[in-house]
Amino acid sequence: MYNLKFSTISWDKGKVKILDQTLLPAKVYYQNIQTHLGIADAIQNLKIRGAPLIGVAAAYGVALAAYNSKAKNYQKFKKDVKASIDILKSTRPTGYNLFSTLKRMTQLLNDSPTQQVNELKSLILQEAHLIKKEDEEICQKIGENGLHLIINGAHILTHCNAGALATAGIGTALAPVYLAKRDGKKPKVFVTETRPVLQGARLTAWELLQAEIEVTLICDSAKGALFKNKKVDICIVGADRIAKNGDVANKIGTYTLAVIAKMHNVPFYVAAPISSFDNTILSGAQIPIEERSPDEVRKIGNFEIAPRGVEVFNPAFDVTPHEYITGYITENGIQKPPFN
Amino acid sequence: MYNLKFSTISWDKGKVKILDQTLLPAKVYYQNIQTHLGIADAIQNLKIRGAPLIGVAAAYGVALAAYNSKAKNYQKFKKDVKASIDILKSTRPTGYNLFSTLKRMTQLLNDSPTQQVNELKSLILQEAHLIKKEDEEICQKIGENGLHLIINGAHILTHCNAGALATAGIGTALAPVYLAKRDGKKPKVFVTETRPVLQGARLTAWELLQAEIEVTLICDSAKGALFKNKKVDICIVGADRIAKNGDVANKIGTYTLAVIAKMHNVPFYVAAPISSFDNTILSGAQIPIEERSPDEVRKIGNFEIAPRGVEVFNPAFDVTPHEYITGYITENGIQKPPFN
Repeated sequence: MYNLKFSTISWDKGKVKILDQTLLPAKVYYQNIQTHLGIADAIQNLKIRGAPLIGVAAAYGVALAAYNSKAKNYQKFKKDVKASIDILKSTRPTGYNLFSTLKRMTQLLNDSPTQQVNELKSLILQEAHLIKKEDEEICQKIGENGLHLIINGAHILTHCNAGALATAGIGTALAPVYLAKRDGKKPKVFVTETRPVLQGARLTAWELLQAEIEVTLICDSAKGALFKNKKVDICIVGADRIAKNGDVANKIGTYTLAVIAKMHNVPFYVAAPISSFDNTILSGAQIPIEERSPDEVRKIGNFEIAPRGVEVFNPAFDVTPHEYITGYITENGIQKPPFN
Repeated sequence: MYNLKFSTISWDKGKVKILDQTLLPAKVYYQNIQTHLGIADAIQNLKIRGAPLIGVAAAYGVALAAYNSKAKNYQKFKKDVKASIDILKSTRPTGYNLFSTLKRMTQLLNDSPTQQVNELKSLILQEAHLIKKEDEEICQKIGENGLHLIINGAHILTHCNAGALATAGIGTALAPVYLAKRDGKKPKVFVTETRPVLQGARLTAWELLQAEIEVTLICDSAKGALFKNKKVDICIVGADRIAKNGDVANKIGTYTLAVIAKMHNVPFYVAAPISSFDNTILSGAQIPIEERSPDEVRKIGNFEIAPRGVEVFNPAFDVTPHEYITGYITENGIQKPPFN
């Protein structure tokens, strides 16, 4: 396994320790969260973000609810845990891993081999640990499956953060980059700053510098100029949800990036765990797209960059049609739609 | 003439009064500048920006140098003024109006009908006033020539600021919008925030709100989603330099916008005075593109948004190939390349 210098999430005796991503890169601060409401809040306010990590965090949120439940009998306990699942489910609408994880937790609860509350508490915590461990392994496999796409000295363009900070492991889009670094391929990454929340500037640039991987930051609007003026060998981005036909919901700006990449004949890959694939929907048009607060656009930190009260359109994600996507790097290999 | 609530630049008894655009929208502050070096500094540091306004400001910069010259004879005076022209010329490389204006000032100096220093000082100041007045009239004509493109209730997408704040008049790209407002057409403008310097968020949103024109702000990366989710009838942007074949250098991100507009069959217009057309160069590839400080990207205000010292690629402009441009709105009507 690749050795990272930080840990995005861990369980520590009834507390969940998270790296607060809203404070990066200025501050590396780990916060202890003691309730599922704290986890829900951390997800909603982007302290924890990235579709796979949100999935892991939600699992630990359920584990916290189970751990904290004062219920003495199975029915009451089940009610407590299901209530936490409902709350966690309502935090963010677009990323699918949240829902696949919570579905798995619901199933565990419904099909439980025991009705002993203490045994169930332990089973739920074990399941959360398993989900985290699986995510680490999935990241590793995505890295291995995408590694051959990274040539020696490759210039890779990515958007937002689909790196280690978006997962419990070495990331999705950045997993092949970490393994390329390990293998001495000297990858060089270009990353868009990714307004409004600046995950590219704040998170991707930070984690790549931690790993001593060369990184160059550009404004979102500079991607056209980048393709024209610099060598870009490959684009790799993450995904928040993938429809049956291969359409991908991902961070706002992915769609534009895919269009420009195709125009410049640069291959465009999406890297994501199978838990991001939503086979209940046929196309991207059906993916619910979260619109977030206008203040994310009007302010940067506490700095007001626009006239107060100006109207804002702030979708957090867009949908990239499958025809712009060269392939899907998953833990099961590189795939093509239609998916089952 | 359309009545604006602010003035970007004016001459006031040996001083040039400018609206400091780096402080908008938080503060409306007029600064008095007394030397050509002050004008050069204001251009370089974006207190004055927008290709046409830079042209006007440069003319007044030369007028200040003339006004302040202590030379008693023509040769010495000419030397003083030419030195100021050289300094002003070196402030920013991409926008062409700066060069066309300074060429005009150089010609006036070389072909001067008088060698009397005081008469020449007066002639130079008159020429600067004339350049400003012409710019106001050109904006008005661009507005009139583009007005028929704005349907009732039109949704117009623009990038950066090619409005009144970029000129001495009612702008270039926004001129037809101001006249549409005057005529009761109820235009609605979408504007990209335009990182790194945020001219869309800080300037375009502000000046449109001053004029009570409806405006919605989006992140640069949301333009793809905007075309997919909202009605956009027309794109109009400004230009910093236009090559003989019609390729346009404009604010970074214009190229991507033009590509996405074409994909969505939305007409894409460039509005610019004839002084932005550089007939000495054949194509956009020859236009020098200014790269600005990495800190424009790493910081917003004093807020550090990226790891300190991270490498940055920060071109201030990109080139949009002429095949993406539906037409060029100028003071002489809507034109098509090749230009003479």
